[in-house]
Amino acid sequence: MNGMPARLLDGVAVANQIRQDLRPRIDAFAAAEGRAPALGIVLVGEDPASEIYVRNKLKSAGESGLRADLFRLPETARLDEVLAVVRDLNARPDCDGILVQSPLPAALGPEAEQVVFDAIDPRKDVDGFHPENVGRLVQKRPSLVACTPLGVVELLDRSGIAIEGARAVVVGRSDIVGKPVALLLLHRHATVTLCHSRTRDLQGVCASADILVAAIGRPAFVTPAFVRPGATVIDVGINRVTDAGLVRRIFPEGHRRREDFERRGSILVGDVHPGVAEVAGALTPVPGGVGPLTIAMLLSNTLKAAEARCSGSR
Amino acid sequence: MNGMPARLLDGVAVANQIRQDLRPRIDAFAAAEGRAPALGIVLVGEDPASEIYVRNKLKSAGESGLRADLFRLPETARLDEVLAVVRDLNARPDCDGILVQSPLPAALGPEAEQVVFDAIDPRKDVDGFHPENVGRLVQKRPSLVACTPLGVVELLDRSGIAIEGARAVVVGRSDIVGKPVALLLLHRHATVTLCHSRTRDLQGVCASADILVAAIGRPAFVTPAFVRPGATVIDVGINRVTDAGLVRRIFPEGHRRREDFERRGSILVGDVHPGVAEVAGALTPVPGGVGPLTIAMLLSNTLKAAEARCSGSR
Repeated sequence: MNGMPARLLDGVAVANQIRQDLRPRIDAFAAAEGRAPALGIVLVGEDPASEIYVRNKLKSAGESGLRADLFRLPETARLDEVLAVVRDLNARPDCDGILVQSPLPAALGPEAEQVVFDAIDPRKDVDGFHPENVGRLVQKRPSLVACTPLGVVELLDRSGIAIEGARAVVVGRSDIVGKPVALLLLHRHATVTLCHSRTRDLQGVCASADILVAAIGRPAFVTPAFVRPGATVIDVGINRVTDAGLVRRIFPEGHRRREDFERRGSILVGDVHPGVAEVAGALTPVPGGVGPLTIAMLLSNTLKAAEARCSGSR
Repeated sequence: MNGMPARLLDGVAVANQIRQDLRPRIDAFAAAEGRAPALGIVLVGEDPASEIYVRNKLKSAGESGLRADLFRLPETARLDEVLAVVRDLNARPDCDGILVQSPLPAALGPEAEQVVFDAIDPRKDVDGFHPENVGRLVQKRPSLVACTPLGVVELLDRSGIAIEGARAVVVGRSDIVGKPVALLLLHRHATVTLCHSRTRDLQGVCASADILVAAIGRPAFVTPAFVRPGATVIDVGINRVTDAGLVRRIFPEGHRRREDFERRGSILVGDVHPGVAEVAGALTPVPGGVGPLTIAMLLSNTLKAAEARCSGSR
């Protein structure tokens, strides 16, 4: 314990800054091309969480001066129908970015997402999931990079937290967060350790970090014992908790989040335990930390893809 | 010091085992296809080290029952001439693997290698340098992976050194060794730290490793102080040393390598100091450690590419 509560890294404010910074570039693109940079979002089925995410993306894009079009397919769509929509968007000159909302309906099979992501033109792959973009990220070449990892680095930069020379520990090795964020931090000259479920002495390894990124998907997993006093802790987890016992174990009596839970029957909890705020030097809240950055970087990627395609740089 | 000299991991013996294991698959391919798996090597110019490397690759391929053809271009070749050879090999149905020997002549410009590597059909990219293969490696999907990193993992496996759960520290973050070996070790469930020139307390971080991979290109850089007693140390460095003072500082009086140097005027020295043999539990010699594995994995990749193309699996 360092006696002072951690500085909260306000993802909403930073995301607003980013969107403001994009504005003149978006206007310049629109003036030069006679149209706004355009994002095509493909939504298959009616998953309630996906509906919310997609609505937020559409709203945020519109507010920032991008065009965003939603292409809906029914829950019963066949894989070739999804692929046909993607190929149509690949071919359209007035579409700059393509996002296929995950997850696809389970009926499409376990391989469907990879097949669909692979089908997206890498130059329009604003999620950065295409292997060519992932490979170019590794090789430190210009590429479209996954939005959440980009958002983590932007949040650190705009919060004045030094990455170069820092000891960064990333917990979780997913393709969407853990591995790309490790690569981005490495390229910014951090010394990076990737941890996971098979890591021995996970607590000890995490406690060596100057910057600790938690991306495991387990509510409140990272307790104060994982955190070196003064470290920066980035909480990428967004876990919906509906178990009252778990909420009571995580949040002390009288905590505001307990009241939220009583009212709504569920709350979003990060991968980081609230007690970490008493140890860390800086901490992202959930919600309101990394989440808003992810959408801001989606807009940034769409603009970047639009600029690159129209300048013919790639 | 643990009092016992490190077990030497014999790369020559392990490479021989690998080649023996490939033999029945090579024979089966030849029987099914009516031809041997075939590797095309492109050599531009007459760099003396490249000449030796290429000769070794041709010899090793031939001895293993692969066909290997050398395509030479003069030092003065233009980039489009190099690309034309690559494209011809891409198109040939009887060519399974393509290797363009690095470095290309400096006159071709700093971007030439990447342009040429990008032009290789990813299915024939036996060096694993194409961004699509790098991306698929990150995503843990079937791909052709760089030979030296593959060789490191084979050497560990065939020497009975456990990777899962081990703390692995990789020093050096090159595209050819550091980053891919980190990814391979991660996928084998090691906890992986990537270090580099900006790492603070490099010695301390290295000394936490169960498996330490040195791939920095600085002769004898990793001294005993970097090594936890009993750790496994993999020396990827192959540095030609011509400075007599340096040789004297690295090797104690009467050391066999000093005599080699007196005789030849230069010797190959790894990134690991010879004193590490008194601390490490296991250690790869230089030469005779990782080097022979690199060629063995080139043969393995050629066979893999041949099998995949002919089964149409990718």
